[in-house]
Amino acid sequence: MITSSANGKVKQVIQWQNKARERREAGIFLTEGIKLFQEAPEACVREVYLSENAAERLRKDAVLWGKIQRIGYETVEETLFRKMSDTDTPQGILCVIRRPEYTLDRLLDGPAPLLVILENLQDPGNLGTILRTGEGAGITGVILGKETVDIYHPKTVRATMGSIFRVPFVCTDDLKKTVEIVRSRGVKVYAAHLSGKDLYTGHSFRGGTAFLIGNEAKGLSAGMTALADGLLRIPMEGKVESLNAAVAAALLVYEAHRQRKAFCG
Amino acid sequence: MITSSANGKVKQVIQWQNKARERREAGIFLTEGIKLFQEAPEACVREVYLSENAAERLRKDAVLWGKIQRIGYETVEETLFRKMSDTDTPQGILCVIRRPEYTLDRLLDGPAPLLVILENLQDPGNLGTILRTGEGAGITGVILGKETVDIYHPKTVRATMGSIFRVPFVCTDDLKKTVEIVRSRGVKVYAAHLSGKDLYTGHSFRGGTAFLIGNEAKGLSAGMTALADGLLRIPMEGKVESLNAAVAAALLVYEAHRQRKAFCG
Repeated sequence: MITSSANGKVKQVIQWQNKARERREAGIFLTEGIKLFQEAPEACVREVYLSENAAERLRKDAVLWGKIQRIGYETVEETLFRKMSDTDTPQGILCVIRRPEYTLDRLLDGPAPLLVILENLQDPGNLGTILRTGEGAGITGVILGKETVDIYHPKTVRATMGSIFRVPFVCTDDLKKTVEIVRSRGVKVYAAHLSGKDLYTGHSFRGGTAFLIGNEAKGLSAGMTALADGLLRIPMEGKVESLNAAVAAALLVYEAHRQRKAFCG
Repeated sequence: MITSSANGKVKQVIQWQNKARERREAGIFLTEGIKLFQEAPEACVREVYLSENAAERLRKDAVLWGKIQRIGYETVEETLFRKMSDTDTPQGILCVIRRPEYTLDRLLDGPAPLLVILENLQDPGNLGTILRTGEGAGITGVILGKETVDIYHPKTVRATMGSIFRVPFVCTDDLKKTVEIVRSRGVKVYAAHLSGKDLYTGHSFRGGTAFLIGNEAKGLSAGMTALADGLLRIPMEGKVESLNAAVAAALLVYEAHRQRKAFCG
């Protein structure tokens, strides 16, 4: 059992919790909690840390414990585990996960891709929620501009509720160029915009479709807006000036889902 | 200018930031930031606190400064103001606002009420987002069960982006009884539920409609579910087991909005 905060692995995990760059250089991300461990593909789990109490408890679940044993694990003294954790009330299981690698081609595969493209999204919870909702609506992938918050931020990973393992995504240094490639492959790119004339519910998303989502406070940049094939309006009553970014994304992807299902019968 | 942390008003504001009960007993809530100050009805603003720098800056905005002067204000030394603030990067304007009072009758007024009913919602950000999205979709009110997080939590108020001043709501100690009253007034009550048979997009919400939303982790209680006129299914692809509560609420209220607008032409 690890009991010292001078332990190299403990120090490494704490660094990974706090530093996006260190996570990136190591090619890993961290998950906490039982649900995310259960959903993690076994081959991708590099390390498992259990708090003393959790080790005792999880031993009683045959399926879970089998997976833990096949991967291998280290037990960590209770208060030390809390230092390794990013949450206030840790569930006692923390994993180091190898990052998946997706290509833009994979995201564009199939007859009618459904993509979400994020420019400068800043809230990790919003990003995680967009992955979770996107999976629910059947999106084929997410494209993240380099200004967008790290997809492996602990809060993002938690908010995905497991979708981080299943929704393909690519991060790009040149978002404009990537959007141009997407468009050249026949995918129509739409932006929800206050100056949009067409209602989002009045447009067909049955063909290849991508939705552009911008920054929480500033919205989309003029440059990205100019790349869109069309600007869509989400109607707003009262004095509401904009919707939360994850809510706007949810309305768009679920509208696409509604149309596509109706089309298939 | 207030410079001492022993100042009674400063101590009071700090207590109000942290204690829901103290806020309730005083019949007030707090807002921070320029946007919320601008949106606050003038007659409801009881006190305004400005940081030194903000006072200097805001003086240049004639409209804003006029409102501040009519209400009256106190300037607070910069570091002391940061202690009064609930945010990491305070905008330098903090207000004490008198609570509005709404009745259930007001929420049920009109030919086709559109309500959101919250049982045991725990995340203040989700609650604020539901108010903001709800105003956008034209809801006529929100009903909160007593287990739901305080609607005047600083994070909730912030997430509403001003909707807290415009969306009527009532908090009730007996949510079941309140739902029964709502139903007795001809409003149909629906719950999004994993065992729902009807798609949420296949149901008419043109008449009086209320949507039940439950706890983020546990969903709706069996007791509340039993009170619903119908269970609706939000389709989910992949391995998604549920959606974020604010996202589910958004899909429902905007589906009602879509149908009601289509109906009107």
